[in-house]
Amino acid sequence: MQVTVVPHAGEITGISGKTAVVIDVLRATSTMVTAFANGATAVMPFFTPEEAKQYYGWHNNKLLLCGERKGVKITGFHLGNSPLEYTGDVVAGKTLLMTTTNGTKAIKRSETAGTILIGSALNAPAVADQLLRLHEDVVLVCAGTRERFSLDDFAVAGLILCLLRERVKLAMDDRARAACLLAESREMRELLLMSNHGQYLVELGFTEDIEYCAQVGKINLVPYFDGKMITI
Amino acid sequence: MQVTVVPHAGEITGISGKTAVVIDVLRATSTMVTAFANGATAVMPFFTPEEAKQYYGWHNNKLLLCGERKGVKITGFHLGNSPLEYTGDVVAGKTLLMTTTNGTKAIKRSETAGTILIGSALNAPAVADQLLRLHEDVVLVCAGTRERFSLDDFAVAGLILCLLRERVKLAMDDRARAACLLAESREMRELLLMSNHGQYLVELGFTEDIEYCAQVGKINLVPYFDGKMITI
Repeated sequence: MQVTVVPHAGEITGISGKTAVVIDVLRATSTMVTAFANGATAVMPFFTPEEAKQYYGWHNNKLLLCGERKGVKITGFHLGNSPLEYTGDVVAGKTLLMTTTNGTKAIKRSETAGTILIGSALNAPAVADQLLRLHEDVVLVCAGTRERFSLDDFAVAGLILCLLRERVKLAMDDRARAACLLAESREMRELLLMSNHGQYLVELGFTEDIEYCAQVGKINLVPYFDGKMITI
Repeated sequence: MQVTVVPHAGEITGISGKTAVVIDVLRATSTMVTAFANGATAVMPFFTPEEAKQYYGWHNNKLLLCGERKGVKITGFHLGNSPLEYTGDVVAGKTLLMTTTNGTKAIKRSETAGTILIGSALNAPAVADQLLRLHEDVVLVCAGTRERFSLDDFAVAGLILCLLRERVKLAMDDRARAACLLAESREMRELLLMSNHGQYLVELGFTEDIEYCAQVGKINLVPYFDGKMITI
């Protein structure tokens, strides 16, 4: 089983036909996983707020507009990008139209992959289980931050690699090896808080989100993207 | 003092006017540092064996043709890329015309930097000292392997960062933070042996080179490149 790591959404290549896991741990994919755990029906990713609003205008039954720019809720949207907002009361039975700076972009840009899974620390063991069941070559796609390397996503890629490596022989390239070593070097909480985007979220008052997103294995489900919709 | 890390020679950008440290620990920059410690006068980097041979043909007094392709000595050249070949008997008083797959390329591509230093584990503490003296913004340029991320060079970038961080306040981006964590996670010897290129060199019979290149701080000098020549 060959596993490679894409360092950020600007470098998504060579994923055609493979199994991709898209990771934006702070916070889009953590938020999606949480929304499904709390009963959301589907998530539709959009590149821009305008596209999400247009779709909402046409269909707005049971839809919620969700997402952020610069970390804060988009004006006129129902929800921002904090997983703690996505409670059962709010999201159960709803389809979420979501647009975020990095995560939804990375998901949409991964559409040439054969299978596209949504990964985070919350569901990392479930993702590893699913990858072992599929037993295909894997590309771990770190969303990164504005097409730059992001420590937080790389650490979660490493976490998934470490979980796989315990159970199957992996062919890793040097970037995957580095991600593994990084994930083993510190607690996930510490790595997320140390990252540039983690520090930015702390400044915005979202420290609790980071504590929440760092909980490895809290949620046992793996959403997947079919090119249009994310469902479980 | 701001420090960033370029992951491989294919991503050298934004270095104009800054201080660059070019790192190809396995083995070009380790070999250069060793050659200077053993009395070499200068190193001239070339992109191709043909260019090196042409220069040699014009000037061959006190010159040696040096370098590798696929890790082994180029046919007709005096020396390959093993630092252990570069003894005082062989290199003292000589100018080395050198062409390697990654290292000399990365050095030549860094020519827009204000100052270009040659870094390796062997001279990492001396490089850190020199950077502290210069006190300018720094780009650590990992040569990488064929324009791909290479664990070995990234680990040495991390080592230099860790040495700097002990003595000065650094503004680091996430890639620099990851390099630091990686360098702290294992002994340099283990990291070099774990890397893809390290494993390839072991297969070629160069294990002793890796043990040699892993010796942090063995050599107390910092070569620099003036756009044409590397000297000390």
